[in-house]
Amino acid sequence: MAREIERKFLLESLPEDLKIEERKTIYQSYLAVGKEEVRIRRVTYGDGESKFYLTYKNRTGEKMSREEIEVEIGEKTYDQLNKLSVPLIKERFLIKIQDGLFAEADIYENIGFELMTVEVEFSSMEEAEGFVPPAWFGRELTGTKEFNNQYLFERVNGKKF
Amino acid sequence: MAREIERKFLLESLPEDLKIEERKTIYQSYLAVGKEEVRIRRVTYGDGESKFYLTYKNRTGEKMSREEIEVEIGEKTYDQLNKLSVPLIKERFLIKIQDGLFAEADIYENIGFELMTVEVEFSSMEEAEGFVPPAWFGRELTGTKEFNNQYLFERVNGKKF
Repeated sequence: MAREIERKFLLESLPEDLKIEERKTIYQSYLAVGKEEVRIRRVTYGDGESKFYLTYKNRTGEKMSREEIEVEIGEKTYDQLNKLSVPLIKERFLIKIQDGLFAEADIYENIGFELMTVEVEFSSMEEAEGFVPPAWFGRELTGTKEFNNQYLFERVNGKKF
Repeated sequence: MAREIERKFLLESLPEDLKIEERKTIYQSYLAVGKEEVRIRRVTYGDGESKFYLTYKNRTGEKMSREEIEVEIGEKTYDQLNKLSVPLIKERFLIKIQDGLFAEADIYENIGFELMTVEVEFSSMEEAEGFVPPAWFGRELTGTKEFNNQYLFERVNGKKF
């Protein structure tokens, strides 16, 4: 199983001079939430093409780190898995912040209030701990329940899962 | 992704002199069916302990072979994934048929008629093709839709998924 190491921050605004490497729309639903999660995603790219994913994550105590397995699935399988809830929708911008290090800025579309966050994924805990956030990053959200996607998904669906 | 290579046969009866290596009860539900499938299982062992699994399989044309990813999940996650259907229940017996080669005999418990099948998993296509079924194996079911588990699951639930 791959290990995902990331830090998450609030964003007040997206600076205009950033170089956007990629832009995509993510439709995200949870089949199970908690320390373990089972998530499905439709990801629609700028050219209108979509890809579909089934992901299992397991939070293992450390707040920056999760075990993750992801598999690309077909649309027919996605549609069967996606029958029961309203997806969380976010516009995702991939931004290069330094050589080999990218930020993913998310603008949430359907949660009933304005929210932008930014995540950076690292290849080691050392790199994550040594990371100095750029000036345009806001308050750190890593490890807080505030604005976590499971919570926002439950909010969009008006119920606890 | 691991590749699963197996052949499946009908069983008229389970010979009494077989050495049963392990016995377990499998409760199996599908979240998605088709060429790709997403399956959950509760497996209860003789000592009463249960384990839970989330599995993705992708049939890739060849009738004996499927890509497979399986992850062990917690009971809380299983319960969230298992809300919507009646599991297919089978009693599974692990039987050694020769050195390094095991058969899994399944007795179906809740499909409304009597059915026993046996599956053998191989480490290569060559081994699978060269396999000579023991005399107690019945008609081969590999690659037929007859009695496949997705179909039996739909039958138990009285609907097409």
